[in-house]
Amino acid sequence: MQKKRISIKDISELAGVSVATVSRVINKNGRYSKKTEKKILEIIEKYNYRPNQIARGLRTRNTHMIGMIVPDITNEFFAKITRHVEKGFFAKGYSVFICNSDENIKNESKYLKDLISKGVLALIYIAGPGLHKIENLNIPTVFIDREPYEDKNIIVISSDNLMGGRMAAEKLTKNGCKKFLLIRDECNISTQEDRQKGFLQYLKECGFDKEDVDILHSKIDYDKIKEKVTKYFVKHTIVDGIFATTDLTALATMDALMKLGVSIPDKVKIIGYDGVSISKYCYLPITTIKQDTIKIAELAVDSIIRKLRCEKVQRKHIVPVELIERKTG
Amino acid sequence: MQKKRISIKDISELAGVSVATVSRVINKNGRYSKKTEKKILEIIEKYNYRPNQIARGLRTRNTHMIGMIVPDITNEFFAKITRHVEKGFFAKGYSVFICNSDENIKNESKYLKDLISKGVLALIYIAGPGLHKIENLNIPTVFIDREPYEDKNIIVISSDNLMGGRMAAEKLTKNGCKKFLLIRDECNISTQEDRQKGFLQYLKECGFDKEDVDILHSKIDYDKIKEKVTKYFVKHTIVDGIFATTDLTALATMDALMKLGVSIPDKVKIIGYDGVSISKYCYLPITTIKQDTIKIAELAVDSIIRKLRCEKVQRKHIVPVELIERKTG
Repeated sequence: MQKKRISIKDISELAGVSVATVSRVINKNGRYSKKTEKKILEIIEKYNYRPNQIARGLRTRNTHMIGMIVPDITNEFFAKITRHVEKGFFAKGYSVFICNSDENIKNESKYLKDLISKGVLALIYIAGPGLHKIENLNIPTVFIDREPYEDKNIIVISSDNLMGGRMAAEKLTKNGCKKFLLIRDECNISTQEDRQKGFLQYLKECGFDKEDVDILHSKIDYDKIKEKVTKYFVKHTIVDGIFATTDLTALATMDALMKLGVSIPDKVKIIGYDGVSISKYCYLPITTIKQDTIKIAELAVDSIIRKLRCEKVQRKHIVPVELIERKTG
Repeated sequence: MQKKRISIKDISELAGVSVATVSRVINKNGRYSKKTEKKILEIIEKYNYRPNQIARGLRTRNTHMIGMIVPDITNEFFAKITRHVEKGFFAKGYSVFICNSDENIKNESKYLKDLISKGVLALIYIAGPGLHKIENLNIPTVFIDREPYEDKNIIVISSDNLMGGRMAAEKLTKNGCKKFLLIRDECNISTQEDRQKGFLQYLKECGFDKEDVDILHSKIDYDKIKEKVTKYFVKHTIVDGIFATTDLTALATMDALMKLGVSIPDKVKIIGYDGVSISKYCYLPITTIKQDTIKIAELAVDSIIRKLRCEKVQRKHIVPVELIERKTG
């Protein structure tokens, strides 16, 4: 018997349960007892049962495949979310196709077509779609980090960027800062807008005027930011509190100021955003607002699993952020 | 006609070519002219033809899916290779399942089973398998970065680590260093062994003795390395040339030395390895040996495509590395 490929029916007979129960255990879907699960998994192991997933996919349309479109996995923030999404799905028996779109609209469309034609059951978009609206997507879809447009069928998961901005302002004001600079991405994406909004809101509540805050826009590029900050500080020596809306921005800002001989945190305090490793592994570790990539990923996986089981799903999740106190502010 | 789903046969009639030619164009496999390709793609676009890839996979066993096992995509070196592999395959019409194993043997085995059962056509392993030998894997398999054991059926692609070690030694000696410290991963993996071998070989050829070189082993962890380097330098102030076999190691070393008040590069010169972004984005950009992640990824994709076409494939590829001169040495 061990030489012959065994079927689900064989397993059900050996385990003394129904074929439907065996199927539920294999698909990790629906109700069954721990004891039954153990018995069935032992039989599967013993007889080396391998469901033919391609055939199964055709029969049930359940391919156990999820599509994930991410701008670029070499960006550590995206990589962290992607890693935890992949691991979360794997634990539930699903595999994930990960696609790097470079935020290019043509790539996104091509990936989307390809994923649909491969029969993915659901789709996760990190920081997308930047440029186009996805029409008539009839599989569960989650947007992480950005909500590019309103659509009641799409689940949105993002950090509490408004609160993150407020926390940065609170930290700087409590440390005695009086003149502020906010350095942000020049793109008008919702994450950046919210961080700025929260920051300005808190300062206003503390009685600061518009003249107490400058805003510097830059492409998120180390050398560009360094150049802009250097130019700015040659003219404006009065600033003593900086909120950089990404950690890379904070690092480039710190580099510029150290080269100008400005003492950090004595003369100027800096708060970053993200909590990626460069904020920790540098000469002066950066005080930052950390995004909870694990929680974001867990919510994405959980929302999709619920949708696939036709359970009720919360449409929007705002994930708390955390202040990590280090050396710069 | 536009309302009805069209078949490959319909396309062949509209294009005036054989069904086999249409199939070759769709699968991007085999010979056809640019002109024929254009004509067929226009018809596909016009009639919105979508091959049912699941059914197709069952019929031809060509799932157009590739499996990729990577220790952790939040490591930038792995992320860069993974990204380029995924993009390279996508351009050829293949999708990639990316799996994060954490170099855990149980995870690796589970992923492997799952990928095989999903019908992947080929497998890419980055920096694996650490602990077990893969038996009887009858699909094309590529190992990137490490060759854990000899197997003539497995293709191996790695950087020229021996040459990288030599280049680091050459740079330090040309800059006048006389007493050396090599800081490396405590694991005996082939990449680390080769970097060390090349480094020591070059120094020997230059007439340096064993007493001129110390070797410090550490887990690749920022805080651990910093602590070990600090302890070492309190006792050994004579060292003037350091080869750190990863960029993270170089960064932690620099941090330790700066905190001890040791001037870099005047008193001590440091060469890193990898060429990841932290080596560039820090207060003192690190001179490093850069690995060519794009070339490594291209060779992996190309080798597998050739294997799938039953073409001859070179079994081992050694990819050149490059010295990036910055501020530390």
